[in-house]
Amino acid sequence: MTKTELFRSLHHGDKPLVLPNAWDFGSAAMLAEAGFPALGTTSLGVAAAAGLPDGAAATRDETLSLARRLGRLAVPVTVDVEGGFSDDPNEVAEFCAELVEAGIAGINLEDSRSNTALDDPDSHGALIAAVKARVPELFVNARTDTHWLGIDPDSTLERVLHYEKCGADGIFVPGVTDPAGIRALTSALTAPLNVLFSPTGPTVAELAELGVRRVSTGSLLYRAALAAAVRTAESVTHGHRLVGEIPSYATIQRLLEA
Amino acid sequence: MTKTELFRSLHHGDKPLVLPNAWDFGSAAMLAEAGFPALGTTSLGVAAAAGLPDGAAATRDETLSLARRLGRLAVPVTVDVEGGFSDDPNEVAEFCAELVEAGIAGINLEDSRSNTALDDPDSHGALIAAVKARVPELFVNARTDTHWLGIDPDSTLERVLHYEKCGADGIFVPGVTDPAGIRALTSALTAPLNVLFSPTGPTVAELAELGVRRVSTGSLLYRAALAAAVRTAESVTHGHRLVGEIPSYATIQRLLEA
Repeated sequence: MTKTELFRSLHHGDKPLVLPNAWDFGSAAMLAEAGFPALGTTSLGVAAAAGLPDGAAATRDETLSLARRLGRLAVPVTVDVEGGFSDDPNEVAEFCAELVEAGIAGINLEDSRSNTALDDPDSHGALIAAVKARVPELFVNARTDTHWLGIDPDSTLERVLHYEKCGADGIFVPGVTDPAGIRALTSALTAPLNVLFSPTGPTVAELAELGVRRVSTGSLLYRAALAAAVRTAESVTHGHRLVGEIPSYATIQRLLEA
Repeated sequence: MTKTELFRSLHHGDKPLVLPNAWDFGSAAMLAEAGFPALGTTSLGVAAAAGLPDGAAATRDETLSLARRLGRLAVPVTVDVEGGFSDDPNEVAEFCAELVEAGIAGINLEDSRSNTALDDPDSHGALIAAVKARVPELFVNARTDTHWLGIDPDSTLERVLHYEKCGADGIFVPGVTDPAGIRALTSALTAPLNVLFSPTGPTVAELAELGVRRVSTGSLLYRAALAAAVRTAESVTHGHRLVGEIPSYATIQRLLEA
């Protein structure tokens, strides 16, 4: 089974696929070593690592560099490509072909643009279709940001059914957390529904009951990582005991040799 | 006062300078926001982020890219340049001039090569002198890896006194943790002594008593960050409560706009 086939099958297991989102090679290698069967990337983490804004199509090069590094891993990886980093469907499709070439199994392709507006559903649907036509094997997770940006959330179902019709392999609706809203989506969709985990929302077990097939952590792991870095530095400064197990220098070096 | 002058003065305050080591722009911006007056980088973190080996002169480009990003910050930043990424002192000096151009206040320059051997002290001293001749304002922290690699630790004092004579502004001896060994170094040196914090070694307050002027966290923060990412992903998977405060998406976005 190829990584792409494995990735597709992980959407149809006993439990939802919990997808931890890495921001660099080290975090991805650690998460793979911890046993997660597939990994995503976080556009916020990638943007922050590079000191660039998220969602503003500024991180095309960083995203491709990271994809090339993560394509080396044994586990399938899906890459957050924001809105595709271009308005031209052919350019987006070519970018996706480069990702497949790098060993990437899937992408997230969102319909928000510059964090402020939603693309027209037909236009975003055409983008999905262009990518699927160019690289049919790539798992295209079509993301709608109706809830995430709070723009026209009533159009969510119509949008995702259209994206599904355009060839999306999965549907991602970050920001939807109410059980009735989630159930309405899973009941209407054929494609697996992906939601964003929220510390104040349903647990993965509860999401499974609602028919969710994939749960992403988004930028949560990167944000937890930054918090841990600051906490550790403060503990050192004040002579407090460090909390939690910390991998050794040799452990990290070993990940890099793999 | 320039960032370089400020950085130099931080080695002569009431307490040792605790230098947290960032691995990317986001971690550096968070640490600066948390109030640390100066930042370092971690060559392990930079290497792991890029999926390259540490200490093998493979991360020259990544180090320069990161330096250019961190030079934007208001706080002074010192960059770990391993052994200088070249055997040619002129090339190392030119690389350091690029760092100064990028707004960097200091470097760590180590005498180990490829994690397996120590450079000849005269050769490493000449490297330090070449850098200081090219960019006198750069704070050059000369690192000896006698303890770190466990190679000829008895030569430590002789090496660091030679590096000091060659113009080093500070001396870094990672791996020395015994109080008598530290005291022997601080008693003999004029330049401020920097040691690597060890969770099983003396506290910062104890190191201060021994005359240490700077305490680095090395790769500790990056390793703590990776551990936190894995722990958070596992908590999500198993429905456990997340531990510790985690900054919001908006907080991270704001750091990127600064």
